[in-house]
Amino acid sequence: MSETELLAPDELERRLRAIGDERYHIHHPFHHLLHGGRLTKPQVQAWALNRYYYQASIPAKDAAVLGRLPTPELRREWRRRIVDHDGDGTKPGGVERWLKLTDGLGLDRDYVVSLRGLLPGTRHAVDAYVNFVKYRSVLEAVASSLTEMFSPDIISQRVSGMLRGYDFVSAETLAYFTPRLTQAPQDVEFALGYVKREARTREEQEQVMDALRFKCDLLWAQLDALHYAYVEPGNIPPGAWRP
Amino acid sequence: MSETELLAPDELERRLRAIGDERYHIHHPFHHLLHGGRLTKPQVQAWALNRYYYQASIPAKDAAVLGRLPTPELRREWRRRIVDHDGDGTKPGGVERWLKLTDGLGLDRDYVVSLRGLLPGTRHAVDAYVNFVKYRSVLEAVASSLTEMFSPDIISQRVSGMLRGYDFVSAETLAYFTPRLTQAPQDVEFALGYVKREARTREEQEQVMDALRFKCDLLWAQLDALHYAYVEPGNIPPGAWRP
Repeated sequence: MSETELLAPDELERRLRAIGDERYHIHHPFHHLLHGGRLTKPQVQAWALNRYYYQASIPAKDAAVLGRLPTPELRREWRRRIVDHDGDGTKPGGVERWLKLTDGLGLDRDYVVSLRGLLPGTRHAVDAYVNFVKYRSVLEAVASSLTEMFSPDIISQRVSGMLRGYDFVSAETLAYFTPRLTQAPQDVEFALGYVKREARTREEQEQVMDALRFKCDLLWAQLDALHYAYVEPGNIPPGAWRP
Repeated sequence: MSETELLAPDELERRLRAIGDERYHIHHPFHHLLHGGRLTKPQVQAWALNRYYYQASIPAKDAAVLGRLPTPELRREWRRRIVDHDGDGTKPGGVERWLKLTDGLGLDRDYVVSLRGLLPGTRHAVDAYVNFVKYRSVLEAVASSLTEMFSPDIISQRVSGMLRGYDFVSAETLAYFTPRLTQAPQDVEFALGYVKREARTREEQEQVMDALRFKCDLLWAQLDALHYAYVEPGNIPPGAWRP
């Protein structure tokens, strides 16, 4: 098949899944340590503290996408993501559930929310994501959410591995993850259908694939920064959280 | 002195210099390896390849600042920076001189300029800088340039250390740095005078200091990403340059 020919939608999906096989952070060494029970409590705290900024920025990211979608139908679909993360005032959303995790790990909630102590690499990567969905095409913005295709696998590894590996972690602390196992596939069904339908040229299909690579890479870069700073001694950058 | 009292301009300068003492990347382990002659040629190539994106983005950063400055006098001053980096069509500017360095290290110029192979951490950090000067106050945008206060020291360490430590590096390859030794102090004279004069409340002075911290941190984060990916084996992220 030539490099300019339109791909069949299912071939596009196959190539998107292949990008995940190569680049999704389930293959990152820090992920293996985390899920293999081979991190210390401070290292797990560093992960939860930094990842909080990612969780807390997801509604900002989704609001930026929502504001660019052209129809009530598309916006309603995307609005559900914001409800999932911010809650409805009765059930806690994903951001609140992530704070249950940082609470459970013994981190001070005010400190976590203040974002003081964040690794600069975390901040840059997360901000890059929010800016991507603001300034790239709507097609690319939607495509960048497609790492959710791969998240049920990483979540099940994470929950089972962490419960087995760490006596300071309980099912309650990890309550963030359970609803994601049903929310993520619902999100993917829409977003994958959207890009398969709306990418109408090979160039747009390539943009969809590049957007997914970009997103995989920024998840990966967050683990790079954590691994560098907190696995080998002596590498914590000035100003970042110190155990 | 209370935490809300206006600082004397010289006390502000003293505190800015103290931020450099703590956070400037001259203290980064990768810098020590680079200047101590303790890197391999592929590791030096990785540094030059990634740092190219920083160099190439500086005119975009300066154009964003230029476009926000309110008077012809201020804009003329800032325009000089763009000339320094882009050249005048006869003398090569900083971007072109950096490509002499990547040429001298044996990297293919088209590959360098294509930005394929860049570490995602480099891209996120550099983009964070360009976005910072677009969306923060002009005062903070100017203040974020103040790492140049510290650059003559790092440049002299770099040039002498690299010439001594690497037989694949020549004075000609390192020609990027020589003009910077006079350009940077000229830039600093203006920018430091500007923030000392224009930060009229303690809150603004704190913003100036935070902007410098932000900038130090993003230089640091670029070396974190390099060190993680290229010093220990097995950590190069998917898609990044492989020696």
